[in-house]
Amino acid sequence: MKTDIEIAQDADLKPIEEIASGLDLAREDWEPYGHTKAKLSDTLLTKLHDKPDGKVILVTSINPTPAGEGKSTVTVGLGQALRKIGKEAVIALREPSLGPVMGMKGGAAGGGYSQVLPMEDINLHFTGDLHAITSANNALSAMMDNHIHRGNTLNIDPRRIEWKRVMDMNDRALREIVVGLGGPLRGVPREEGFNITVASEIMAILCLATSLEDLKARIAEIVVAYTYDEEPVTVKDLQVEGALTLLLKDAIKPNLVQTTENTPAIIHGGPFANIAHGCNSIMATKTAAKLSDYVVTEAGFGADLGAEKFLDIKSRAGKFDTDAVVIVATVRALKMHGGAKPEDLKTEDMNTLKTGMENLKKHIETIESFGLPFVVAINKFPTDTKAETDFIKTWCESLNVDVALTDVHANGGAGGTELAEKIVEKADTPVQKLNYVYDLNDSLEVKIRKIAQMVYGADNIELSSTAKKQLTFYEQQGWGRLPVCMAKTQYSLSDDPALLGRPENFTVTIRELRPSIGAGFIVVLTGNMMTMPGLPEKPAALNMDVDQDGKIIGLF
Amino acid sequence: MKTDIEIAQDADLKPIEEIASGLDLAREDWEPYGHTKAKLSDTLLTKLHDKPDGKVILVTSINPTPAGEGKSTVTVGLGQALRKIGKEAVIALREPSLGPVMGMKGGAAGGGYSQVLPMEDINLHFTGDLHAITSANNALSAMMDNHIHRGNTLNIDPRRIEWKRVMDMNDRALREIVVGLGGPLRGVPREEGFNITVASEIMAILCLATSLEDLKARIAEIVVAYTYDEEPVTVKDLQVEGALTLLLKDAIKPNLVQTTENTPAIIHGGPFANIAHGCNSIMATKTAAKLSDYVVTEAGFGADLGAEKFLDIKSRAGKFDTDAVVIVATVRALKMHGGAKPEDLKTEDMNTLKTGMENLKKHIETIESFGLPFVVAINKFPTDTKAETDFIKTWCESLNVDVALTDVHANGGAGGTELAEKIVEKADTPVQKLNYVYDLNDSLEVKIRKIAQMVYGADNIELSSTAKKQLTFYEQQGWGRLPVCMAKTQYSLSDDPALLGRPENFTVTIRELRPSIGAGFIVVLTGNMMTMPGLPEKPAALNMDVDQDGKIIGLF
Repeated sequence: MKTDIEIAQDADLKPIEEIASGLDLAREDWEPYGHTKAKLSDTLLTKLHDKPDGKVILVTSINPTPAGEGKSTVTVGLGQALRKIGKEAVIALREPSLGPVMGMKGGAAGGGYSQVLPMEDINLHFTGDLHAITSANNALSAMMDNHIHRGNTLNIDPRRIEWKRVMDMNDRALREIVVGLGGPLRGVPREEGFNITVASEIMAILCLATSLEDLKARIAEIVVAYTYDEEPVTVKDLQVEGALTLLLKDAIKPNLVQTTENTPAIIHGGPFANIAHGCNSIMATKTAAKLSDYVVTEAGFGADLGAEKFLDIKSRAGKFDTDAVVIVATVRALKMHGGAKPEDLKTEDMNTLKTGMENLKKHIETIESFGLPFVVAINKFPTDTKAETDFIKTWCESLNVDVALTDVHANGGAGGTELAEKIVEKADTPVQKLNYVYDLNDSLEVKIRKIAQMVYGADNIELSSTAKKQLTFYEQQGWGRLPVCMAKTQYSLSDDPALLGRPENFTVTIRELRPSIGAGFIVVLTGNMMTMPGLPEKPAALNMDVDQDGKIIGLF
Repeated sequence: MKTDIEIAQDADLKPIEEIASGLDLAREDWEPYGHTKAKLSDTLLTKLHDKPDGKVILVTSINPTPAGEGKSTVTVGLGQALRKIGKEAVIALREPSLGPVMGMKGGAAGGGYSQVLPMEDINLHFTGDLHAITSANNALSAMMDNHIHRGNTLNIDPRRIEWKRVMDMNDRALREIVVGLGGPLRGVPREEGFNITVASEIMAILCLATSLEDLKARIAEIVVAYTYDEEPVTVKDLQVEGALTLLLKDAIKPNLVQTTENTPAIIHGGPFANIAHGCNSIMATKTAAKLSDYVVTEAGFGADLGAEKFLDIKSRAGKFDTDAVVIVATVRALKMHGGAKPEDLKTEDMNTLKTGMENLKKHIETIESFGLPFVVAINKFPTDTKAETDFIKTWCESLNVDVALTDVHANGGAGGTELAEKIVEKADTPVQKLNYVYDLNDSLEVKIRKIAQMVYGADNIELSSTAKKQLTFYEQQGWGRLPVCMAKTQYSLSDDPALLGRPENFTVTIRELRPSIGAGFIVVLTGNMMTMPGLPEKPAALNMDVDQDGKIIGLF
């Protein structure tokens, strides 16, 4: 089989103006970025306000394993499959981060015959959104350090700075650094560290803002540090919300591209799925819903993190309905949840598969508890046996759960028509009422407890002494009515990455909280979250090249 | 009078496809970036190989002072004026750096009615070239630190690393830092510092490369560090030249925009004018020459730095002819060179003006020594008196030097027709032969001495003990045949910024050398060169804003 980049380079892309006219967009609604990418106007949503919304289909999955689930691939494939069965569909995805692309991870542009294109650009600089976020984030840092350097009238305590610089790179040497060395011409020395750009609160804000005006208002609220008297210092105090918004004036515009089968795709924003909410932008999802009858979109990691945040944070902030959910599982990943070793995944093994089903079971219960209709998608790998996929089907049917086998990596949209037919039926049935896991009026502690117990299946939560103090302080600050954004390992339903399957009788330890007041949530850390990845022994970059004719080599 | 941004927002921009068709470009020769920006194909030069070249007009100036010379404005205005007198002209400019825009400097997009547009985009992210350079630069740093972290088989001495990280920001706190702190998961501790992006050797390389292939070959040659045995370590040793070139695949394409009067402008690259050569890219200048009868382009700072490097480094690397030179001077700046104080510039003062003429005189002699025809342009300010401008005219005429009064800031191209007429006459007269200041076969020391004596007017040079050792080492490495890139204060012909006018009887101290082997020159430092600017007390960013309709406020 051809590699992803070979399939991408052989694809027959339409000029972006054709994709745009297919969506009835006028010339003033979009701007070209090259011949196959465009930015949609940030005022398009306002213009289309009175148009009815298409149905929103959320793609989530079981807990990820090294075996891979192919959630983005299924998302793209489902969008293509909907068009195959005669439905108008638009895909809404996150944009990839450049750092991991240089490191080891595959891109976030789908795979095989279910990719968004041009994948080379999408995986590299794309339309510059992440670079704009990096600039805005680091302009804020420079302004704050300059303020301290020039007399510090705001009384900022350099030991209590929340705001870090960012870089869109996997660069472990920047995790802990000291800046401002070298005397009075070089600023005030202090401890600092770089996060990867997607971990910036500005990324989370961009994805939750509903307009340029809302973006500015949210940026103004960012808490960057505390004073020596422990009072929060905000962007508004530094008076730079206007300049930072100006730096984001194009980044806020959703990007339009197409898939391998020319299905329109809106790719916009990509916040971390642990310390942030891990979904593409509200503006992208809502715009897609205005432009089509069905939007297929995804959330980060498994349903315990991704779907919970999509529903409790994103859909609440965006005031939009979610109409149906796809839960992606693979034979390989289920077997790992059942105890199979990575080297044994190619061998049929009904025992580990059967045990691993418990992980899927928990995520099914979670989606049911939200009151949403759903379909389980078995994303087929070449090594799966018929006995294995049949087992999952029978298992689902015995629970009265709809299930579809998909083969979109190898066959594109044609490999997803069964899933498309089934999800349309679900999406077209009106949802009674979405049950959020928690009410915004719940205290922060109650919110955390509800998620841990209802979504993770924990017996209880345990608060560190730091977390206890912070809970009191945050409630005093008036931040208690914000949603919480859980930062937990994606590999387990619990906070211990080694506990696969469906762990029971466990307690979730709440280590620390962090304010993301601009984004509008409180980050709850249940362990050490790495916010700056490192490079592996042999980075992917070593294989990348571009020949004298400009042909790209080795990008996946 | 309206501000620059008001004039820019009121300008009547043509769609970029109109500008492109005006240059006889085919659809495959360019890609749109929005409706008023485009990238030209990097293979356009090859395609146009057999087309005759237009004349190249270089705009340089006297030594800059805080009074301002308006060199970019004259460059844009002259391009417009050439069109006014019926000539086909294209402007080739550098792209501005975002850092200074947020700080205090005006943009590098011209001013008044002689601007390149859309100035908001050009001064902010533009088409992402600087961000791509930042990414490539920092990917290299991350790869090198990862190499050291993972066993350091190349034997890199962390105390002898030449390669620094960069950020397109004025951020003094990053000038001297320590990275890799926090234990084995966080890399190897070492001293580090960030430069501003335009100081990256990758920027210099991008501007001197003549094709994508040449770009990769040059990147491979970059010396990033030395081993414990003091052997150079290159990008080739780290095997990442392919990945870095891939990151620059779009940045190498010149950008097409237009001026306030719809004259085509190619804006591409913008290396530092002290530690690098300070000119836009060879690909931009050569492409402009293929697309038009006259190219108007500028070099950084005064003729002692900018023109010397344009001729000795850029035009030699690009193998193109320079046909005529404009030397820009202002009454205000000449008075400062004659001893006037900044607060007295608005008052007529024939004495300081007369004394200040000596600075212009030296630059005239320099351009004459290159054997190039030239015209002096007096860039008019509203406070100049007729007596003052008449004095300069008479002074020039007495030396048999052509001079033209220009008023392009207030009047656009119409304010530059006298200059246009005169420079066309010069450019159309065949140049005998360009006399480079030095021969490539000269030793590095001889090259430095020739520049110091012939261009700066120094009596001699003095080498520090470090510089002496480096000269020997560099010659041993086989780097002796490269051109030298002088890093000297721009404010004086000497290496002392306080010595205005035309200093005499001085020695230039050579403090240190640095290899820019990929760019293909040796940087010669004559003092402390700041390669990361800082922010002022009240950064320009404090006034910037974007209102709810997306209208930009406070950007100049």
